[in-house]
Amino acid sequence: MNVIEVPDAADERLADYVRLRDVNLRKSLESEHGLFMAEGEKVVRRALRAGYRPRSFLLTPRRRAALADLVEQMTAPVYVVAEEVAEALVGFDLHRGALASFERKPLPGMDQVLDGARRVVVLEDIVDHTNVGAIFRSAAGLGIDAIVLAPRCADPLYRRSVKVSMGAVFTLPYTRLHDWYGGLADLRERGFQLLAMTPAPGSVLLADALAAADGDRHALLLGTEGDGLSSRWMEQADVRVRIPMVQRDVDSLNVTAAAAIACYEMVRGHSVDRADAGTV
Amino acid sequence: MNVIEVPDAADERLADYVRLRDVNLRKSLESEHGLFMAEGEKVVRRALRAGYRPRSFLLTPRRRAALADLVEQMTAPVYVVAEEVAEALVGFDLHRGALASFERKPLPGMDQVLDGARRVVVLEDIVDHTNVGAIFRSAAGLGIDAIVLAPRCADPLYRRSVKVSMGAVFTLPYTRLHDWYGGLADLRERGFQLLAMTPAPGSVLLADALAAADGDRHALLLGTEGDGLSSRWMEQADVRVRIPMVQRDVDSLNVTAAAAIACYEMVRGHSVDRADAGTV
Repeated sequence: MNVIEVPDAADERLADYVRLRDVNLRKSLESEHGLFMAEGEKVVRRALRAGYRPRSFLLTPRRRAALADLVEQMTAPVYVVAEEVAEALVGFDLHRGALASFERKPLPGMDQVLDGARRVVVLEDIVDHTNVGAIFRSAAGLGIDAIVLAPRCADPLYRRSVKVSMGAVFTLPYTRLHDWYGGLADLRERGFQLLAMTPAPGSVLLADALAAADGDRHALLLGTEGDGLSSRWMEQADVRVRIPMVQRDVDSLNVTAAAAIACYEMVRGHSVDRADAGTV
Repeated sequence: MNVIEVPDAADERLADYVRLRDVNLRKSLESEHGLFMAEGEKVVRRALRAGYRPRSFLLTPRRRAALADLVEQMTAPVYVVAEEVAEALVGFDLHRGALASFERKPLPGMDQVLDGARRVVVLEDIVDHTNVGAIFRSAAGLGIDAIVLAPRCADPLYRRSVKVSMGAVFTLPYTRLHDWYGGLADLRERGFQLLAMTPAPGSVLLADALAAADGDRHALLLGTEGDGLSSRWMEQADVRVRIPMVQRDVDSLNVTAAAAIACYEMVRGHSVDRADAGTV
């Protein structure tokens, strides 16, 4: 175990952890160095279990014991910093936190992610990291096989996405389309029925669309909460689907709630969980 | 229209709007004065449509026109304050915001809220305002008839709940149990089957429980994300239910995702939305 106490927030060895709430800084720093950040003991453990290689750990004295069993076997440095140093470094109070910086892996290709997959979710331009993380968490928990991201969709390995997903971004296979315009054709060629979720007129209930489908490969397309899917993707879809809603005043569903319900509907009847235990 | 420009954040007429992110201060201030806060043009409009009486409005100059059609007919004062004054007053940048302070109404009783209701959600000790707001939004959109809150559940009219619910807290009838220990007996006497959502062993799939039920009145009990329902409420429930989950590493659902799915499952087959239009 390689424990190093660092008294100075400006120490270069802590550079991975600087200003964690500065989205623009973090985006460039993380892509430049090919790293991502895991926060909290549970999520750090999941990243390690998923085979990600740690660059370093950052602990405050009171969290030093939290990961002791893990970091003992690690060659990556464990930086222990006082709480004031941690706060000056990351930009918020870390007193309950444990952080680790990990190396990214190359994204797998479409072949690898979609081989054997039957129910996938495709996120178009969901730029909110919280929403991306929440959708990964639900999709993973409910048994969706894979996620495909449009080129402009937010990064699942961004700190906020990782945290909200509870680490589901490490376990649920995903990849990213290079080509927004033509990307859906690839999915269709692989036999996926393309279901576009939309509030626009002319949609059918998702359950009805799934019941009427010929094949057993379905790709649910989700757009951003405000604007929904692009007209290009709407045109490319095989069918437009919705979740049944009442119109009490102007109620609508949050995109993460809609995604959870849609994932549930897609796996219903196929679920492996018929045993006598489950998790809400 | 009663427009008043106020140059000083310390002006007593602005007292309803002070330090909106100071949870403890706001809780006591709002309960003492029987008020709540609506934020954003859409939510303010929904509060007015739902019949809540405004105490006052707070607008920055650039938002002055946003509610013009509405405030013209109002006798409540419209305070217009410079952006710096607004920020000093509420504690964050309000440059896109419009605020209004409303008078609370007395909570309706169980009789009023549950008369004719068939599918209700009961929230035990969900203390997170964001989660309460998100659950209201999904429940309202999907067609749940009412919500019942345990005594310690967070306030749906707290600013953050109101905002996250998009104003669904104004339209979905709800009330609060006075008696946590004995409150479920009242629901059972009214003919509701009590379904306790839980990850603990011994649960059945929610869909199976609903299919096997005799009556048509169902109350879904939801506990807090970490600890779940209390043992008292678990004992009082008629059946323990779960959503089908895969166990990929330690995946679980967020309480708001679980609530959305459960609401969807409860209304499935009963939904009024079979028409050719919907909202995701």
